[in-house]
Amino acid sequence: MNKHCYINFRCIFIFVTIILSCSHSLAQNIQIKATEDFKPSSVNQPGKQYPQVNSEGRVRVSISVPQAMKVQLDIGAVKYDLVKDEKGIWTGESAPQVEGFHYYQLNVDGASVPDLGSLFFYGAGRWGSGIEIPAKDQDFYALKDLPHGIVSQKIYFSKTTNAWIRCFVYTPSDYDKNLTTRYPVLYLQHGSGEDETGWANQGKANLILDNLIAEKKAVPMIIVMDNGYATKSKPKEVNTQPTGIGAFNAFKEVLMNEIIPMIDASYRTLADREHRAMAGLSMGANQTIQITINNLDKFASIGGFSGTSNYPSTAAIDPSTFMNGKFKDGEALNKQIKLFWLGLGTKEPNPFPGSVAAFRTMLEKQNIKYGYYESVGTSHEWLTWRRCLYEFASLLFKEK
Amino acid sequence: MNKHCYINFRCIFIFVTIILSCSHSLAQNIQIKATEDFKPSSVNQPGKQYPQVNSEGRVRVSISVPQAMKVQLDIGAVKYDLVKDEKGIWTGESAPQVEGFHYYQLNVDGASVPDLGSLFFYGAGRWGSGIEIPAKDQDFYALKDLPHGIVSQKIYFSKTTNAWIRCFVYTPSDYDKNLTTRYPVLYLQHGSGEDETGWANQGKANLILDNLIAEKKAVPMIIVMDNGYATKSKPKEVNTQPTGIGAFNAFKEVLMNEIIPMIDASYRTLADREHRAMAGLSMGANQTIQITINNLDKFASIGGFSGTSNYPSTAAIDPSTFMNGKFKDGEALNKQIKLFWLGLGTKEPNPFPGSVAAFRTMLEKQNIKYGYYESVGTSHEWLTWRRCLYEFASLLFKEK
Repeated sequence: MNKHCYINFRCIFIFVTIILSCSHSLAQNIQIKATEDFKPSSVNQPGKQYPQVNSEGRVRVSISVPQAMKVQLDIGAVKYDLVKDEKGIWTGESAPQVEGFHYYQLNVDGASVPDLGSLFFYGAGRWGSGIEIPAKDQDFYALKDLPHGIVSQKIYFSKTTNAWIRCFVYTPSDYDKNLTTRYPVLYLQHGSGEDETGWANQGKANLILDNLIAEKKAVPMIIVMDNGYATKSKPKEVNTQPTGIGAFNAFKEVLMNEIIPMIDASYRTLADREHRAMAGLSMGANQTIQITINNLDKFASIGGFSGTSNYPSTAAIDPSTFMNGKFKDGEALNKQIKLFWLGLGTKEPNPFPGSVAAFRTMLEKQNIKYGYYESVGTSHEWLTWRRCLYEFASLLFKEK
Repeated sequence: MNKHCYINFRCIFIFVTIILSCSHSLAQNIQIKATEDFKPSSVNQPGKQYPQVNSEGRVRVSISVPQAMKVQLDIGAVKYDLVKDEKGIWTGESAPQVEGFHYYQLNVDGASVPDLGSLFFYGAGRWGSGIEIPAKDQDFYALKDLPHGIVSQKIYFSKTTNAWIRCFVYTPSDYDKNLTTRYPVLYLQHGSGEDETGWANQGKANLILDNLIAEKKAVPMIIVMDNGYATKSKPKEVNTQPTGIGAFNAFKEVLMNEIIPMIDASYRTLADREHRAMAGLSMGANQTIQITINNLDKFASIGGFSGTSNYPSTAAIDPSTFMNGKFKDGEALNKQIKLFWLGLGTKEPNPFPGSVAAFRTMLEKQNIKYGYYESVGTSHEWLTWRRCLYEFASLLFKEK
């Protein structure tokens, strides 16, 4: 019995040792598998060596927290444990990430905090870390040695919301030279949990247009990037409270009655419907279709990136009732709309594929002409929307 | 002996109990002493309730970190322990802070992290949290219902540094209306560890000028806010590596040979010395005096906020050798310089008071005319520099 006992314990001991060795080897294999060609991310804070990205798209972070019990990298909805060295520096990497821009954060003993290595971006309702996995087609939004437009911060007071609002305005490189030229305007909206900074910071809208215009692939245009959140008459709360899709009930009024007149008064615009477009991503796409289809005397071009006005429904759309029957007369819409354009990433999560598909089915049923673009391999993220802007802007304000 | 022991232990127990009770009361008293009129800081992220500030200038923070062992508020070079409640939310407040803008951070189990409640600002070489203690004179930089200029982001390529550089340009509200008017230009520089975003974000330079111009206290002017870090021929490193006062050896060349020509070509400037000024804070003040005094054919007005070109020395200055004798001929300088202006906070730490005093003594010895302003009660921080800009800009580009 004693001997049995001894053997059994030894067997268990050996078994456990094997298991531990195996799992240790497994863990080591995972470590070894990461290709050691990590480079600092292109959106790091000045002089910061971490976070880094390797050729596989793995993200490596490093943070000094000698007293912490547990530190994790939280990216792509997965938390990766970091490993502490003898100096108290925690380091580790993620599995390969999809190319493009991703929000991420660190988790220190349960506290979700930004990584001080990265620049900060506004998304998911907060300023936080972001990282760029170099995309194969990154050239279209690269900073190049060619004429650059400027992005201006414009402050205006909204009587609708009784609040100060900030918007960003892109003017093309020749705007300050050709002082008699007037330009078409694209109103370009962000998504849920984002704000007016998104399209220039994460979206690189200015660089995309600089490149398109320099290559004569797009018409020089003004782009207005506003905050899509707006609620009526709540002094000092409005526009600083991104509480989700419910909090933009006054945006249509702000845009139609305040932003557009302000822009037409402040900039040399071509202030007619043929030279005014609206596009947006996700929530901004929903807003775009709602606003433009109800105001076709003001807009002739429409872009919906990863979103449509039936969101979040994936059900078949009845055009006789949907949006008060605005899509009933397809022929009339085709005459009025110069460009109706939709885009979507091939890896977007539900309900986007189903929702956009239901909308497209309705458009096709009504014989409404529209352009459709698929961003291969990207999800509900900024590389999808950069590509959408590139494609959409290259078609915009040209002859039908 | 046993009884003695018992009594002794009991005495010690009672003594310790009293001490603990006292310290507990003391701690409670400190808590109670904070006036309960805390309000969310004016520079919080959208919708965030914390950090808060009360009428005494105390800063209260609150963060949910159930697993943390220790969480602190780190502000004004003092770390304040936060207290955890039963839900794992850590809360606490600082001693009263001086009015104005302060950088701060949280410390979670030894990790210095930004507070997700506040907006982030670039200072001390990183993007981090900031808080506004309402100043008694905050009206001069308040956002008011009057015409607002715009702040534009301008990208240009520097051959000197072989790098892309971003600067921000303030144009007054009438710039886009009076298309034939030309404007004087103020080149306005940040301090050590800060960047081109500082003057608009922390400094509120645009609002200060909007207010001054609307009240006709200042001449409408263009303000150029550039990054003062520049080193020669280090591709892709320059301007993103604020490594201290040594790393701006090429800034003079960038400013004189690239920025000024680029601004004069891109904006409707009055491109002569009488209508060109330079000012800066701390490191930027040092750069300003070095550059302007050596280029009086290009600049006629000079502002040094919390800094002079003898920094960090507090020793008496010999004008026959200082800056190669540029201050030897006071009379000649008086003829050339329209406005020579210095400002300092009354609570600035060493070596600033001594260093600026030594510089002023030299100016006086040489009979060089200059304006001097003291910001009462403020340190080497942004309220000092906001006030300096307000005073300096109200004198700028006016008849001598």
